[in-house]
Amino acid sequence: MVQTEQRLEELGIALPPPPKAAANYVPCQRVGNLLFLSGHLPLKDGITLLTGKVGKTITTGDNDNGLKTVEDGYEAARQVGLNLIATLQNELGGDLDRVEQIVKVFGIVQSADDFHEQHKVVNGCSDLLVDVFGAERGRHARSAIGTNALPLDLMVEIEAIVQVRD
Amino acid sequence: MVQTEQRLEELGIALPPPPKAAANYVPCQRVGNLLFLSGHLPLKDGITLLTGKVGKTITTGDNDNGLKTVEDGYEAARQVGLNLIATLQNELGGDLDRVEQIVKVFGIVQSADDFHEQHKVVNGCSDLLVDVFGAERGRHARSAIGTNALPLDLMVEIEAIVQVRD
Amino acid sequence: MVQTEQRLEELGIALPPPPKAAANYVPCQRVGNLLFLSGHLPLKDGITLLTGKVGKTITTGDNDNGLKTVEDGYEAARQVGLNLIATLQNELGGDLDRVEQIVKVFGIVQSADDFHEQHKVVNGCSDLLVDVFGAERGRHARSAIGTNALPLDLMVEIEAIVQVRD
Repeated sequence: MVQTEQRLEELGIALPPPPKAAANYVPCQRVGNLLFLSGHLPLKDGITLLTGKVGKTITTGDNDNGLKTVEDGYEAARQVGLNLIATLQNELGGDLDRVEQIVKVFGIVQSADDFHEQHKVVNGCSDLLVDVFGAERGRHARSAIGTNALPLDLMVEIEAIVQVRD
Repeated sequence: MVQTEQRLEELGIALPPPPKAAANYVPCQRVGNLLFLSGHLPLKDGITLLTGKVGKTITTGDNDNGLKTVEDGYEAARQVGLNLIATLQNELGGDLDRVEQIVKVFGIVQSADDFHEQHKVVNGCSDLLVDVFGAERGRHARSAIGTNALPLDLMVEIEAIVQVRD
Repeated sequence: MVQTEQRLEELGIALPPPPKAAANYVPCQRVGNLLFLSGHLPLKDGITLLTGKVGKTITTGDNDNGLKTVEDGYEAARQVGLNLIATLQNELGGDLDRVEQIVKVFGIVQSADDFHEQHKVVNGCSDLLVDVFGAERGRHARSAIGTNALPLDLMVEIEAIVQVRD
């Protein structure tokens, strides 16, 4: 029991504080044994928001084009994953063993017009979910897309559907 | 009973006619006690389609850049919300009290590349849902994103998942 | 029985090989009687990936702007549909009669900034689903949006939710 929390400890992961409700929506809404998680943010350590567009960074002299790399995006997606897990833990009374299956992940990457590796960015979240919940419970259906603009200049936003048990 | 329709009246809201099926898809598909609502349009009074990109309006002399404001977007999202409620009422035999829970809202805002307040736009729909259904039934999980292009030049498109009772 | 496979034959459709799991996600995840299908690709005959942005093709002398037409996009969406059906058949032990209802389709079209006919593109998938499963089982809730950038330069990416029976 409490194997998932033990796994987090093995991985050296301290979850951030769970996101709070904002305006008229909530981080998570339950129907039956399904949790629908809102689009979560790449908030690092509950403090720093990871922002910017992902694309091919080009440096000319002392300047660059301000774009983030795939590696930056991967790290941002991993941070979103940590926030998703924090929401799950909060919703499930602190017991992540009640996660039966990560069903679906939808990741949206703020992208330069010619950037086409959104799947590698969203892997930052998918890899974390499998690390934490294992291959059986952690592997999920997934879509990854790009967009020209996300709220708050977020590098990536990810929502999820999760099956739970009582 | 019929409290939700009474609430609409108190708010002075007359719902538009429910959207019809188009091509090979339908406004709403039911599975069990869940309704999956198609991406709905910002159709005002069933007549005028609210179009354009949301961004920072800049005026130079007699010209502006043609972008819509956050307030325009908020109003468009509210109109989408009215159309979503019209579809719900139509699907539920005219009785919105059968809405048990607004589960999930996904809003896509047609955005200028540097616009990052999609959440404030989609609030136009979220606020309406809570006004009409109350905080308990109306608050939902939500994602809000931007995009460079929507069908018919729509300012915003919103889909939803709703739990109902018989 | 096996009416759907017979219908495929009548339509002269040979399904492509079903997509395989990649990285830490899978083509399809089941929860109860619902299948959540990942964002699928416009992979033609299991070989050629249909890529590019959809928009208004403009030709000047020997050059054009490299954009794809609505008809190109429609064909790409149809190919995604064939891959979605291949995944369904694989998941259902080869018996597409076990598809009870196509519940929801979400299509994302890689688009030029001024392209606004994403609905006509995604029709390529919706029309196929109704051709194969019939109007009753095949018609679905749907959202169609554009985006500036998709993974692998895909012309279109489509995910789906499908209700099945045992």
